[in-house]
Amino acid sequence: MGEVGHAGAAAADFGSLGERGFVSRLRPLLPGRTDVSLGAGDDCALVAPPSPAEELVLKADPLVEGRHFLSSDDPRRIGRKALARVLSDFASMGAEPRWALVDFAAPPSTPVAFADGILEGLAALARRHGVAVVGGDTSRGDAVSLHVFCAGAVPRGEAMRRDRVRPGDVLFATGALGGSYASGKHFDFEPRLAEGAWLRRRGVRAAIDVSDGLSSELWHLARASGVRLALDPAAVPLSPAARRASDPLAAALGDGEDFELAFAAPASDASLLSDFAAAFPGTPLSAVGRALAPAPGGEVVLLGASGASPLPETGYDHFAPAGAAR
Amino acid sequence: MGEVGHAGAAAADFGSLGERGFVSRLRPLLPGRTDVSLGAGDDCALVAPPSPAEELVLKADPLVEGRHFLSSDDPRRIGRKALARVLSDFASMGAEPRWALVDFAAPPSTPVAFADGILEGLAALARRHGVAVVGGDTSRGDAVSLHVFCAGAVPRGEAMRRDRVRPGDVLFATGALGGSYASGKHFDFEPRLAEGAWLRRRGVRAAIDVSDGLSSELWHLARASGVRLALDPAAVPLSPAARRASDPLAAALGDGEDFELAFAAPASDASLLSDFAAAFPGTPLSAVGRALAPAPGGEVVLLGASGASPLPETGYDHFAPAGAAR
Repeated sequence: MGEVGHAGAAAADFGSLGERGFVSRLRPLLPGRTDVSLGAGDDCALVAPPSPAEELVLKADPLVEGRHFLSSDDPRRIGRKALARVLSDFASMGAEPRWALVDFAAPPSTPVAFADGILEGLAALARRHGVAVVGGDTSRGDAVSLHVFCAGAVPRGEAMRRDRVRPGDVLFATGALGGSYASGKHFDFEPRLAEGAWLRRRGVRAAIDVSDGLSSELWHLARASGVRLALDPAAVPLSPAARRASDPLAAALGDGEDFELAFAAPASDASLLSDFAAAFPGTPLSAVGRALAPAPGGEVVLLGASGASPLPETGYDHFAPAGAAR
Repeated sequence: MGEVGHAGAAAADFGSLGERGFVSRLRPLLPGRTDVSLGAGDDCALVAPPSPAEELVLKADPLVEGRHFLSSDDPRRIGRKALARVLSDFASMGAEPRWALVDFAAPPSTPVAFADGILEGLAALARRHGVAVVGGDTSRGDAVSLHVFCAGAVPRGEAMRRDRVRPGDVLFATGALGGSYASGKHFDFEPRLAEGAWLRRRGVRAAIDVSDGLSSELWHLARASGVRLALDPAAVPLSPAARRASDPLAAALGDGEDFELAFAAPASDASLLSDFAAAFPGTPLSAVGRALAPAPGGEVVLLGASGASPLPETGYDHFAPAGAAR
């Protein structure tokens, strides 16, 4: 068998490595879990299901060269981001990620060290959060891309969802927003898994992660919940990078890739801010607005000195022509 | 909101449709299941977990233009194949697929009718097998690609695996092999889900699906199980397309994309062939060889008049240079 030769240190690029050779290089990197009965290497993976008191949580997210990263970026940060984006979705529901599968495509000319770096970055974050990589596929592509699929669990009926905002709720955002590409935060953000789980246990039932920009996420919440949301622009937490932008508020609302949590909590939970600060001293939390009233179809307004004005949904649409007005 | 306009009939291509517009077009196509508490449209999907008497089964498979189909192919067949390949993996374990997520990438210039056709073909097969499409992502890409993730269940400890072949077992293959690209079977094959579940209930514990060619699959079984396998070339079921090839046996062993099942059953199960024929009169089943003896690292030989010769592993390696000797 040529497998050992294929996988040897002399291999210079992804194409010469061979699929089995590449997979065999990866396997030692892949973190495990005791609930995995059959990991990567068979037709499917087998794991212990969540308990009957839980729901099974499923999510897939792509990471594509030119859209989410450049080929000149550090491969470890690329691989880390591919998984971190999915974990951010789990965070937004207060769910626990457990198992991941990764489809990895790259041009045959990709240096092996680059491909190794991508998987090392991904595996390191997986280990950190107790996620087992239990399968996937490697293939040739015109560009580098990763498709990460993650499964996990959340206590039944407790998931934070987009359609659970109620009139009277207070709107919150974690962290600081805007300029994520400029600052590198789009690579290095820490998925708010601990914060999401804490909020879920606290009884919060409506949340979303800020991937396309706060404006866009508020619209998602408003539409799914059928409510009118009011955002206080003075309360939006601006990142240092957003403050350096020509229009800091526009940057904070529209840049996207913040991977913070936006959520709605009952106004009756008066100690939420202080309790959160005690639990997560390193994670800012800001009350940024209110849910006002039922509104079929949803509506988001920006509060101002002269009253409320409609908030444009300036989030990023992956198909919209560059710079097109929405 | 511009969503209705985006999704209108006047949209001519994928790029002008917008991501939300495209997703809203798709939603009515997506089959559901009563165990889905939250489908596509939130950060993650929520479904009822398999029972404690089951294991959770996870699999991801890519389908990429130029590798698995051509842009000139019927889009319904492309979409169908994207899911069918994953279902074939579930079939090989005797598992039941339940929920799928689909990442769909296409160039912005892709006609909407083509993109619609892909998803219609996928959704039709999903409905046929009771699989709910509970999420996914649409994005721009240089080529059309689909990454399908599927989760399901199998009774605990009963999954058919690659590492369960025992010396003395008889080797079987369903259907007829070879020439799948020439005949179009690589698109139109029916995933052997019913046959796989039947074999599992029968007590079969070692199987694989024939995606890269029977030679390659036998090597996978041999390596994973640490056994020496002997293949009887005269017993290999040749498809009509393979019979028309210059070397029918080579076509049957190496063409790949047959999506049949290869499995090992105890020789003591003397009525397997007749009982299978009664249960599946439309599915040929052939005894093609035997597992001979333990062999660390695995070995596969071809039986001949002058004794046994090593069987080359001529399966398709997605990274191997075209035509390269293996």
